[in-house]
Amino acid sequence: MPLDLTNTDVVTLTAALVDAPSESLHEQALADDVEAALSALDHLTVVRDGNTLVARTDLGRAERVVIAGHLDTVPENGNLPSRLADGILHGLGSCDMKGGVAVALILAATIADPVRDVTYVFYDAEEIAAEFNGLGRIARERPDLLAGDFAILMEPSNAGVEAGCQGTMRVDLRTAGERAHSARSWMGANAIHAMAPVLDILATYLPREVEIDGLVYREGLNAVGINGGVSGNVVPDEAVVTINFRFAPDRSENDAFTHLQEVFEGFGLTVTDSAPGALPGLQRPAAAAFVEAVGAEVGPKFGWTDVAQFTVLGIPAVNYGPGNPLFAHKADEHVPVAHLHSVLASLTTWMTS
Amino acid sequence: MPLDLTNTDVVTLTAALVDAPSESLHEQALADDVEAALSALDHLTVVRDGNTLVARTDLGRAERVVIAGHLDTVPENGNLPSRLADGILHGLGSCDMKGGVAVALILAATIADPVRDVTYVFYDAEEIAAEFNGLGRIARERPDLLAGDFAILMEPSNAGVEAGCQGTMRVDLRTAGERAHSARSWMGANAIHAMAPVLDILATYLPREVEIDGLVYREGLNAVGINGGVSGNVVPDEAVVTINFRFAPDRSENDAFTHLQEVFEGFGLTVTDSAPGALPGLQRPAAAAFVEAVGAEVGPKFGWTDVAQFTVLGIPAVNYGPGNPLFAHKADEHVPVAHLHSVLASLTTWMTS
Repeated sequence: MPLDLTNTDVVTLTAALVDAPSESLHEQALADDVEAALSALDHLTVVRDGNTLVARTDLGRAERVVIAGHLDTVPENGNLPSRLADGILHGLGSCDMKGGVAVALILAATIADPVRDVTYVFYDAEEIAAEFNGLGRIARERPDLLAGDFAILMEPSNAGVEAGCQGTMRVDLRTAGERAHSARSWMGANAIHAMAPVLDILATYLPREVEIDGLVYREGLNAVGINGGVSGNVVPDEAVVTINFRFAPDRSENDAFTHLQEVFEGFGLTVTDSAPGALPGLQRPAAAAFVEAVGAEVGPKFGWTDVAQFTVLGIPAVNYGPGNPLFAHKADEHVPVAHLHSVLASLTTWMTS
Repeated sequence: MPLDLTNTDVVTLTAALVDAPSESLHEQALADDVEAALSALDHLTVVRDGNTLVARTDLGRAERVVIAGHLDTVPENGNLPSRLADGILHGLGSCDMKGGVAVALILAATIADPVRDVTYVFYDAEEIAAEFNGLGRIARERPDLLAGDFAILMEPSNAGVEAGCQGTMRVDLRTAGERAHSARSWMGANAIHAMAPVLDILATYLPREVEIDGLVYREGLNAVGINGGVSGNVVPDEAVVTINFRFAPDRSENDAFTHLQEVFEGFGLTVTDSAPGALPGLQRPAAAAFVEAVGAEVGPKFGWTDVAQFTVLGIPAVNYGPGNPLFAHKADEHVPVAHLHSVLASLTTWMTS
């Protein structure tokens, strides 16, 4: 279904995007439509890589801005087709993040002469394992396509600016013991009992609150899983707790792991998953100008998002998009029409004045 | 295959029993053979109930002794047929407990005129869930068949006397919390962290050692399982630890549960499994005479056994049988020939003098 980017409004376009299913790894039809619509615009140069599209102005401006959004959604959950009621657009991906994609597409179509050069990125497979992420693929294989002074990731942020993001690391901590029949437990050593000091550490741990560029990040250290036991009459010889550390972006992944080793001194840790945080970078001119222009309150991003992909490339980035992120991935996912209008208006003003 | 109880020795008979497969719920062929052999003995009255056989002398003696053993085994484990080497008989059930059954069958066949009346019980389905246990069925439905002053359960006890048995109780202890994304963990409450005081209690618990009738029982309180966790980025709202309490026979099941409620005050406990202990009862004349006659060292029984079934009926009972119980249920299960001979000799002496 061809996308009309010029004779439409942002609500209608969001609804059309919601009604074009694009679950992760099934984005091709939507990517085809987006490619056709962008290619029809004379002021943009379009590059396609898999189901990711990069569209650039090339006006020789002093600064270049990257505006990015992912095309894919989580699986349908009884929330199609889209439905507009009482100023709220409901439906799969309306919040995460076809509302933001609609805003970006309208900016791409209607602002032929922006005051900063713009690179629009519409990418695939954000909602699944990191190895498939289209933005990550471009960052690894064609980082030149993402070059810029500032990036805006249009993930839902309640139409406010969320800067930076926290890192995340998961580790497994194992305790060992010695099996024995539970009727003669003194013959063995109980690996679950050996977890007592670990849970004590977790229960009494005081997470840092760190102010960076005026934003307060709140770390967190949590057991997200625990498992142990052989059978109902056996003293168990192994137990494992999975711990998730969410760390402020002033720590690198190495720093985070060193901290965990100090906290759990004497216990062996195995990292099973890790992603770096991203500093807010609000002191950079492009970022500061953006925040001032959109006039939105700035908050820290606690969860991990693709802004970290830009940080790795040395590009300051923020989240700024319509929709309440708490409704992402929910059956009642939705986006307020007011968010769509306000984000589009603010970005239009910033890009044209 | 007919069983020859009179023109055989105890080792040959044990081997023949091992070579007659009788996994739990498949005891019928062996029960048929045992029934035929016992019915051929004029001095015994035989009652069959399912695959359980009860054979009694009725000489009007002042005391009656019950001698019991189960006919079933755990599943075969590459340990058939039987094999005799270096004074050790190997094979499925040789230890648990066809060696003991062979001793009892030879006593039944050869001692027509015991000084105490004897009730022999050969029962089915001891190795599986308690509801199938043949001795339990007789105790519930025909307790008159088990009447007696003293009982000997011929479970493997290293040819020594093990008196009484400890009780066992399993409880589930759950902690509750509130789910939240682990990136915003302060919005939730971590149920795994809430387990910290529970594991502290378990890790520092000092189990009682209790002397009863000169025997020292050692209790044990152990986590035998722990489980919690929703997914790698969610603060979990529930965790559960399964605790096994092995308690000395001076506590009833009610006492045991009251103790657990005191130990884990403030936490909810759900009993999932429970069996009472059995007091050694060594001060009773029949038991004391037995211990003196066999001249074996007496130890406490830590694990739960069917002696508790007799205790419920008010009959003091001991374990006394050939074989090392640590090899029960193992692929290399075996019984020393010396155990078979010594147990048979001691019981013959006790029953005839």
